[in-house]
Amino acid sequence: MKNETDQSLDPQDWESMRQLGHQMIDDLIDYWKGIRDEKIWKPIPQEVKKALETSIPENGEDPKKVYEDFMQNVFPYNKGNVHPRFFAWIQGTGTPLGTFADLLASGMNPNTTIGEHSAMYVDRQVVNWCKELMGFPVDASGILVSGGSMANITALAVARNSHGEGNIREKGLVGNGENLLLYCSTETHSCIQKAAEILGLGTDSVRMIPVNANFEMKVNLLEEQIQVDFDAGLSPFAIVGTAGTVNTGAIDPLDELLEIAKKYNLWFHVDGAYGALARLDPIYASRLVALEEADSVAFDLHKWLYVPYEVGCTLIRNAKKHRDAFAMTPNYLLQEMRGLSGGPDPISHYGFELSRGFKALKIWMSLKEHGWKKYAQMIAQNNRQAEYLGRLVDSHAQLELMAPVSMSITCFRMVQQGMSEKEIRDLNREILVRIQEEGIASPSSTILNGKYTLRVANVNQRTRFEDMNILVDEVLRIGNEIL
Amino acid sequence: MKNETDQSLDPQDWESMRQLGHQMIDDLIDYWKGIRDEKIWKPIPQEVKKALETSIPENGEDPKKVYEDFMQNVFPYNKGNVHPRFFAWIQGTGTPLGTFADLLASGMNPNTTIGEHSAMYVDRQVVNWCKELMGFPVDASGILVSGGSMANITALAVARNSHGEGNIREKGLVGNGENLLLYCSTETHSCIQKAAEILGLGTDSVRMIPVNANFEMKVNLLEEQIQVDFDAGLSPFAIVGTAGTVNTGAIDPLDELLEIAKKYNLWFHVDGAYGALARLDPIYASRLVALEEADSVAFDLHKWLYVPYEVGCTLIRNAKKHRDAFAMTPNYLLQEMRGLSGGPDPISHYGFELSRGFKALKIWMSLKEHGWKKYAQMIAQNNRQAEYLGRLVDSHAQLELMAPVSMSITCFRMVQQGMSEKEIRDLNREILVRIQEEGIASPSSTILNGKYTLRVANVNQRTRFEDMNILVDEVLRIGNEIL
Repeated sequence: MKNETDQSLDPQDWESMRQLGHQMIDDLIDYWKGIRDEKIWKPIPQEVKKALETSIPENGEDPKKVYEDFMQNVFPYNKGNVHPRFFAWIQGTGTPLGTFADLLASGMNPNTTIGEHSAMYVDRQVVNWCKELMGFPVDASGILVSGGSMANITALAVARNSHGEGNIREKGLVGNGENLLLYCSTETHSCIQKAAEILGLGTDSVRMIPVNANFEMKVNLLEEQIQVDFDAGLSPFAIVGTAGTVNTGAIDPLDELLEIAKKYNLWFHVDGAYGALARLDPIYASRLVALEEADSVAFDLHKWLYVPYEVGCTLIRNAKKHRDAFAMTPNYLLQEMRGLSGGPDPISHYGFELSRGFKALKIWMSLKEHGWKKYAQMIAQNNRQAEYLGRLVDSHAQLELMAPVSMSITCFRMVQQGMSEKEIRDLNREILVRIQEEGIASPSSTILNGKYTLRVANVNQRTRFEDMNILVDEVLRIGNEIL
Repeated sequence: MKNETDQSLDPQDWESMRQLGHQMIDDLIDYWKGIRDEKIWKPIPQEVKKALETSIPENGEDPKKVYEDFMQNVFPYNKGNVHPRFFAWIQGTGTPLGTFADLLASGMNPNTTIGEHSAMYVDRQVVNWCKELMGFPVDASGILVSGGSMANITALAVARNSHGEGNIREKGLVGNGENLLLYCSTETHSCIQKAAEILGLGTDSVRMIPVNANFEMKVNLLEEQIQVDFDAGLSPFAIVGTAGTVNTGAIDPLDELLEIAKKYNLWFHVDGAYGALARLDPIYASRLVALEEADSVAFDLHKWLYVPYEVGCTLIRNAKKHRDAFAMTPNYLLQEMRGLSGGPDPISHYGFELSRGFKALKIWMSLKEHGWKKYAQMIAQNNRQAEYLGRLVDSHAQLELMAPVSMSITCFRMVQQGMSEKEIRDLNREILVRIQEEGIASPSSTILNGKYTLRVANVNQRTRFEDMNILVDEVLRIGNEIL
């Protein structure tokens, strides 16, 4: 009984749309299956960039044609973190079923914030699983967010609002009047500083404590600084320990930080965006045990749980403090006891967002597909691969290890006797660019103690030990070609 | 040359995974195609909830079995915003190709923040298209975020940091010392208050100005309040106008707000999360024209562009102020001129996040599939449907319109002579719950001027005019059964 004039965006031809979906599945399966033999990265031709600069189309075109455009201009020039030799930044691989879960989540299309529907319960179960993974108590609270930056700022917002008499949410920072300070190391991820800035504390509120030769926070300097600040009438409120720094995978001495936080009654937050899940690797478990006692922890699922982008998690030990930081109930979100308008406590009471997709589903399906034990093996494998790479580096006179291998990060560079620091830098920058341009591997770079270094961060479920041999051989080949 | 011991999360059997993908596509196509004849909502049985309370699995199981679990416990109990009679909150429908785009985005799995790869260019093109949709200048900047809450807080963070001498990012609010205030109406979405709280301004910094009978901000009261606050030595810094309030779709007098903002040198932000795209409907275009002059605008693409969750957009007129609020370059994000480490200005310089999925792709493919003209028609259709519903309500003695129909929101309720306000409330709450429980339609509710009302918010690409007849008939049937 469709009216002549009724319009919709649904396809005229459902069968054709179904076939297009099958085609996409086939193309993705072929892509993943053959990825090892493909170049990891290709330069984007000028004409492709040009095609991605056109104005908004006035009229539509056949979905098949849209897909052709995608296959021509978008798909071939992918970032590459699906490839077994992607080691840049810290970006996970994804898995086929994780991707299919995103398809299903998008197809169901629930806003997973409020109401009585299955996504709310899957989300809750996944947050509970996250507590289990981190050894957090069952009565802790948590929320899935886009990633580490949002996970950290969410936790620090709770920490800030829980400070003192807890009047900051209402009165604001100026109304409260204290000079709040948070402590982290110089190796802490930049998102902690960004969080402090966004939360209104300002760059100046972040005390960056120097690190030792292993890039771990110097605890004695931390305590000295806290005392100096208290004596100056300032208000320390939080310590941020890092479980796996982005530069070198270093782990701050979490147990000592926890002690200091308790001693001075400060919030203890752990940024485990990259490394918290390493607690599943027996080699690292003991150094991460204090994480279980933290007031809050942030970690990513698209790194070491290898689910597709984007999803991270914040856990807060004290659920009431968590809820008190964010909960509000406007008239248009009134809940009922029955029907769609019933359901669990709205998730918006625990974070910034009212619009939330069903990102829990890919974690739910992935953990059911593999079980936590398999993830423990995979994480341990990445760590062992990094150590293996470290040994390869050590065995070559032309290569130099730039930091102790910690977790799955190996920093090294090529050197030759008599080269200046600038010449070494130029050499390794050129190696970095060429090994990407040739499509072989994608490490990234950083600067440690003022020295430029290649950086291999491995949260890749497709990497094999042989890939580390390939990487080293190719770095040496390219480097010697340049020389 | 796979080593015996090398492990991965990739399937043992790619063909079986391919077939599973095809099965999912088929199930989704059948679901969407037949959705009109399905119940919009089903209660979740206790045993299903029980099944979603189990601990994290230790060992994995076959992906097919995981999918069976999903089909049994998750898929049947969906929220329902894919259904043609979903009118709750303001949640869009999604489209098949939009969902398939999410599949492709997840399968490519780029972190769309940094680097030289296609997703960066698609994201940039989509942000440019968003500027075109809003009539913003080409040299404005913008960023795609999860939705309205994040879009609004991103804009207000820029507004806050741009205030005065621009030292707030560095020195923090206490270091700056001013009592910053922002102005919005009592009908403004709760995320504005939440943004002020998170940004450290506090609940008390939000001046909620009363509204007129059409639920639009009273401009004379706004100006009075600003003057009172200046006289008291406080620091007004921003006015938030709403283009489509969440309760009734009201539009604040944007042109007058713009004038006042200019007069007092305040940042003018428009929360158009729901309604900004109504500027494509000629009936509303003239009332939204001042939006083009705003300092910033926030709007959702998963509402009136009908793309699947989650994606919203913030546009900022002054790109430098935008970048100055967020940009930072740590050592591990150094850029090169060539290779993967080249590429456009990192998107993290324009917002909170470093982890960003490829949410641009669904907008890119959807706008190419339909063109902007079709969206203009669809948005106009939703508005005409709301007006049609308003006329149906007017024609029934037992129904009462609770607010002027504005954009695509119609607030009404059932009444009977002699009923008290409490009896009317109880009746309509029961109608709301039963019409959901019977699987017919999902309106939601709100409170206007202290009175409970049903609320029909229509950003649904599957709705037909006849659905409004069905809704009214069923409300009356159920209401009279209750009476």
